[in-house]
Amino acid sequence: MPTLFNRWKATREYSVAIAALLSAEDAAAQSMPDASPIKWHLAHTTWFFETFILNSGESNFQPFNPVFRMLFNSYYNGIGEQYPRPQRGLLTRPGFQEILAYRHAVDLRMQSLFEAQTSEGLIELGIQHEQQHQELMLTDIKHLLSCNPLNPAMVGKDNQLGISDNVSTASTTMEWHSFEAGLREIGHHGTDFCFDNEMPRHKHYVEKFMLASRLVNNAEYLEFIQAGGYKNPALWLSNGWNWINQQQIHHPLYWRHSDDGDQWQEFTLHGLQQLDPSQPVCHLSYFEACAYASWVGARLPTEAEWEYAAQKMEHVSQLFDSCWQWCSSSYAPYPGYVTTEGAIGEYNGKFMVDQYVLRGSSAFTPRHHSRITYRNFFPTSARWQRTGIRLVK
Amino acid sequence: MPTLFNRWKATREYSVAIAALLSAEDAAAQSMPDASPIKWHLAHTTWFFETFILNSGESNFQPFNPVFRMLFNSYYNGIGEQYPRPQRGLLTRPGFQEILAYRHAVDLRMQSLFEAQTSEGLIELGIQHEQQHQELMLTDIKHLLSCNPLNPAMVGKDNQLGISDNVSTASTTMEWHSFEAGLREIGHHGTDFCFDNEMPRHKHYVEKFMLASRLVNNAEYLEFIQAGGYKNPALWLSNGWNWINQQQIHHPLYWRHSDDGDQWQEFTLHGLQQLDPSQPVCHLSYFEACAYASWVGARLPTEAEWEYAAQKMEHVSQLFDSCWQWCSSSYAPYPGYVTTEGAIGEYNGKFMVDQYVLRGSSAFTPRHHSRITYRNFFPTSARWQRTGIRLVK
Amino acid sequence: MPTLFNRWKATREYSVAIAALLSAEDAAAQSMPDASPIKWHLAHTTWFFETFILNSGESNFQPFNPVFRMLFNSYYNGIGEQYPRPQRGLLTRPGFQEILAYRHAVDLRMQSLFEAQTSEGLIELGIQHEQQHQELMLTDIKHLLSCNPLNPAMVGKDNQLGISDNVSTASTTMEWHSFEAGLREIGHHGTDFCFDNEMPRHKHYVEKFMLASRLVNNAEYLEFIQAGGYKNPALWLSNGWNWINQQQIHHPLYWRHSDDGDQWQEFTLHGLQQLDPSQPVCHLSYFEACAYASWVGARLPTEAEWEYAAQKMEHVSQLFDSCWQWCSSSYAPYPGYVTTEGAIGEYNGKFMVDQYVLRGSSAFTPRHHSRITYRNFFPTSARWQRTGIRLVK
Amino acid sequence: MPTLFNRWKATREYSVAIAALLSAEDAAAQSMPDASPIKWHLAHTTWFFETFILNSGESNFQPFNPVFRMLFNSYYNGIGEQYPRPQRGLLTRPGFQEILAYRHAVDLRMQSLFEAQTSEGLIELGIQHEQQHQELMLTDIKHLLSCNPLNPAMVGKDNQLGISDNVSTASTTMEWHSFEAGLREIGHHGTDFCFDNEMPRHKHYVEKFMLASRLVNNAEYLEFIQAGGYKNPALWLSNGWNWINQQQIHHPLYWRHSDDGDQWQEFTLHGLQQLDPSQPVCHLSYFEACAYASWVGARLPTEAEWEYAAQKMEHVSQLFDSCWQWCSSSYAPYPGYVTTEGAIGEYNGKFMVDQYVLRGSSAFTPRHHSRITYRNFFPTSARWQRTGIRLVK
Repeated sequence: MPTLFNRWKATREYSVAIAALLSAEDAAAQSMPDASPIKWHLAHTTWFFETFILNSGESNFQPFNPVFRMLFNSYYNGIGEQYPRPQRGLLTRPGFQEILAYRHAVDLRMQSLFEAQTSEGLIELGIQHEQQHQELMLTDIKHLLSCNPLNPAMVGKDNQLGISDNVSTASTTMEWHSFEAGLREIGHHGTDFCFDNEMPRHKHYVEKFMLASRLVNNAEYLEFIQAGGYKNPALWLSNGWNWINQQQIHHPLYWRHSDDGDQWQEFTLHGLQQLDPSQPVCHLSYFEACAYASWVGARLPTEAEWEYAAQKMEHVSQLFDSCWQWCSSSYAPYPGYVTTEGAIGEYNGKFMVDQYVLRGSSAFTPRHHSRITYRNFFPTSARWQRTGIRLVK
Repeated sequence: MPTLFNRWKATREYSVAIAALLSAEDAAAQSMPDASPIKWHLAHTTWFFETFILNSGESNFQPFNPVFRMLFNSYYNGIGEQYPRPQRGLLTRPGFQEILAYRHAVDLRMQSLFEAQTSEGLIELGIQHEQQHQELMLTDIKHLLSCNPLNPAMVGKDNQLGISDNVSTASTTMEWHSFEAGLREIGHHGTDFCFDNEMPRHKHYVEKFMLASRLVNNAEYLEFIQAGGYKNPALWLSNGWNWINQQQIHHPLYWRHSDDGDQWQEFTLHGLQQLDPSQPVCHLSYFEACAYASWVGARLPTEAEWEYAAQKMEHVSQLFDSCWQWCSSSYAPYPGYVTTEGAIGEYNGKFMVDQYVLRGSSAFTPRHHSRITYRNFFPTSARWQRTGIRLVK
Repeated sequence: MPTLFNRWKATREYSVAIAALLSAEDAAAQSMPDASPIKWHLAHTTWFFETFILNSGESNFQPFNPVFRMLFNSYYNGIGEQYPRPQRGLLTRPGFQEILAYRHAVDLRMQSLFEAQTSEGLIELGIQHEQQHQELMLTDIKHLLSCNPLNPAMVGKDNQLGISDNVSTASTTMEWHSFEAGLREIGHHGTDFCFDNEMPRHKHYVEKFMLASRLVNNAEYLEFIQAGGYKNPALWLSNGWNWINQQQIHHPLYWRHSDDGDQWQEFTLHGLQQLDPSQPVCHLSYFEACAYASWVGARLPTEAEWEYAAQKMEHVSQLFDSCWQWCSSSYAPYPGYVTTEGAIGEYNGKFMVDQYVLRGSSAFTPRHHSRITYRNFFPTSARWQRTGIRLVK
Repeated sequence: MPTLFNRWKATREYSVAIAALLSAEDAAAQSMPDASPIKWHLAHTTWFFETFILNSGESNFQPFNPVFRMLFNSYYNGIGEQYPRPQRGLLTRPGFQEILAYRHAVDLRMQSLFEAQTSEGLIELGIQHEQQHQELMLTDIKHLLSCNPLNPAMVGKDNQLGISDNVSTASTTMEWHSFEAGLREIGHHGTDFCFDNEMPRHKHYVEKFMLASRLVNNAEYLEFIQAGGYKNPALWLSNGWNWINQQQIHHPLYWRHSDDGDQWQEFTLHGLQQLDPSQPVCHLSYFEACAYASWVGARLPTEAEWEYAAQKMEHVSQLFDSCWQWCSSSYAPYPGYVTTEGAIGEYNGKFMVDQYVLRGSSAFTPRHHSRITYRNFFPTSARWQRTGIRLVK
């Protein structure tokens, strides 16, 4: 296992390596309030180390630029004001090169702290935090490029970083694995890193259930569309029905009709491609996932079901590295959850409302940044993440 | 126990008795999209009997007025189109008297069906449905009258129907009742009526907890305000903090500063009153309930905790007849929940997303329309219902 | 000529006579922010006399109800705060009968002032003001009833008040009357009443032009629709094209397809009727009027052209009593225009921006409330007034 | 006088010279829907030559890139679809360098056409069009940089292009020049270039008036603020009063309070500066210009007054090169105005509604791009242009 320093260094380098695939203009634009410019991610992850580690770890701390404290604060009210999120794309200054200089300066100062071997817990958090933003960088740039009628590709299929929208596909037959009812334990235990929202480990009574052996794929979802799934209110949650009608949603986020209307295509980080029927269906809202499940007479898993099944490891494929899997569980604190003191306590706890849990990890998740207790979360209408469907009966 | 017919008759009469306290104008206005005109409630509850019982129960069914099928359909896509909800206040026709005539005609036809003793389940559902709307009538008219600078009273304090905003108050000291951890059962069992969302009864593991002996009262909530509770982001969920700032919310929905600014007043169905410190604080959003709980180092109960405590009946006051109590549980189907076939299946199931559960009942709930398995639900920002705070530690 | 008192009395009675054709519910609802409840018009016109005449004319003035000063103030900042315009439909109190009592009380007090023969100018203004609101009462109730799928009629075609949507039609052939170029005078002169915006009379150089002998009728406008007029951007002002696409506008406000889609119908104060091809096309926005004119190679008149043509009276029909006629002139002060001192100065002057002038009068205008110098004005997208098209070449 | 070719070449070079002062990121961002990225201006002005000249002038026309026809079409429906205006900042591709290549390629092809001496009128229009966009480039980049808390300067005060926010100031005393009443002629005559909206020359009767010798300056406008001008509804048009209250507007667009609150500063292309009392007040809406005029007992000029005064040249300063001057005239076609055939006819005519005329030119207007008949136009709430106040009595 690499040392903390080595992992920190590799993480810092990987963010820059992603950005290096883009022009300064690509890295500066913001396609919607939910997304952020790549450049902003580079700066914010640096701000995180500067604010939560250097600021307390250095005896004579001086900020790199006092205005950055506000510009690159995402949502920590405990730190102070924030530049309005929907306007991050207006920050043409500092420029890309200046942000690299900011990264470099903070990295040098971090290296001195490593020698003092303090703040290891916070450094680990800073690494994990940057890894989360690496996934966001890919989802955000995908969304940005998808808005461009030129359909630009970010990367070729065999790029050195291994960035890809295509995942290993599963056997074509969907099978159902049975799990017995019983009192189960979920949540993190042990001393490895986890986020606070994965703790404490606790008991949960789970009824018997059957879990699908793989994710729903494009071919299956296309059947749903062709059967009029988006036009049948009986399949939809009320909020979902209103939402697809107001937003005029008829298919997954990145699906496109070909110009002649006969073919389906999908926008990917490799540009526009023919829709691959065997790939898992992806970039779906919670509402669409529920409607599909309803159509096939199944449902989404609770997060306890998902985690218990993952514990048992019974030949269920595509749990990780493919698509995040919507759960029917609203994102809530585990029994006995305690928020960390101070501004860092805002990391997870204050978002535990009006969102749903996603489990697993996706093709965009950095390696080693996933585990069976991991809890991702998004609002019901979010679609720009790699979100897919695991069924349960 | 009264017969089904007697209960049906009493329910039908009570709705009209509420409306009789209002002018035709009061009964026609709609103060916001969430609320409906009183007149519309009178018609919709009648439409429910006509559509779900007469339509199948009568051999030669003829609608009272074919346009009403659309005008008074709330949200049943299985029945057909609906008149846009936010515009219900524009339906000056049919007038109040015409709607009474509609009620009378449907009631006469219902009486014939009673003799045939069919559809008892649906009739029971129609009664319960109308009782739910009776509570909405009081909350909706309260909201409407609150928009009027004349601060009109709907009723005097000793009105014959016993309609009141004032509830019996509890002992001043808040005590904490302990409950042991264990695997519990919640949900409805037996043959009495319940809504489909209360079933099936199922197991839930509950950690040990302490429940407050009474609801939080106005005096306590005022302390929270005076201590700057609405200005401290550390107490709030992120969505809540954004919401109170965007909506400029600084106090419970119906609280008002007196003209000289020295006193707090509260708008009630009896008009504007001095704020009574011993009354339970009421008309709060989920966000405010959570922020208050956070401030006192407590939290909201899960619905399993609430229901288990109610089963034990350990001298906990104000469970019913005072304020609905926000739970930290998102509104979701119980394990094994099955939606009813047909349009009636839209009654509850399609709303099981993006809402939170409230337990108990309120001063506006009709008598005999409450039980410990009852699940009410509203979005996090809803405040016009009688919603209050039960704490847990 | 009737005395001032007689005209005042007749005007006051006519407003009540209009309202008497409606239920209390009809009179209380507000269908959109631009429109007001009939009941509010009754109260506001009374407020006008109370505020601008009784308040200064009575030595011991006491308001009928001090809250009414705010409730029924339309837009006079000089008088004080106003109840929010979009919420006028929420004022179920004071009720219809109470507002009639308000009218009666103010009328009695006004009669005493008549004997003192003071404030004649302001009384005349109050009469004219109430007549303007009488027209608004008819346009506002028409809009409200049009929102009701029951298509209710306000009045029969032979009602005693002579209220009608149908106007005397003109000869079928449209002719063009020529007017020479020259320096003309427009604006009010003499001692008869006029609004301040009609003064002062001033010179205007008018190029030669030809004016259409009658208004554009439904048959002609239908040709425009059938020729794809609403789908051809070349015919539209840029703002108009955006507006019809955003609002999904394809025909005049009150036109409807019959259920079988083969026929055009029009909603009127007499309910839903077959579209009468010979009636002038009505309830059009400025944008639609311009697009139609562009399609036939004509244009809208300037207000100077319209007024000069009206001075010459050369057999041009439908100048009055049919539809207001959109002019290409933006609503602006005449050279030398002076605003009246005090709150009454807010009557016209502060609206002289972002609106266009309409000339003539309509079928809803009270008798004797029109003249050739009269300047009506609405924003470009307003359609609920009786607005039509007079062409110029 | 330089040849058409030389002027064309100089104009093309000047656009690139402006952009060369910015980073690729600066050139790509869009700060609001009204503004466009600098890069987009560079591409659109090139698109104009490609679409309106090369396309018909070249016998074997091939587009540089067929998608550009849509991407860089501003508003010409006659040419086809347009990329949504508010999303221009999302077009990170084509990048800055690629757009320079586009410019270069089109310029080479244009040079061949020059030798054929065709399309001179359209080439002249293309030059004038690009000059208009050069002014927009400066106003748009100023707005973008103003959104950045780092307060970046675009240029130093002595930059080689002479770009500046500071104008030559006038004598401190404001004087009034009298003009007699009479029938005047305004509008373009002769054979020099003008836009179609400046024609035809026509007669206008102008009453006598007095024109201020200079623009209102910052010191004078500050008095208006300090006297409570933004809090007194009597000074404002009704729409203006609503607008400043909804938008929370209390001062000109780029004015800022210093951090200690004691000083006024102004954001400029040179960064944040102390407010210079002698500079003309700038970046005002029509509403603010009217309110100020009302406060001093004056008014804004009509465009006929302004143009007639400019014809007389009576020692009135700051007519040009300082701030555009709001006129009270709504933007409308001159009598006899004829729209050009084809898509180029969309250049001006379709915007002649709901906007007001501005006369003169500003410090951002390219040299030789102004004349006394020039008609600029913006909606009443526009503030990001250099707009100021010339008074009339």
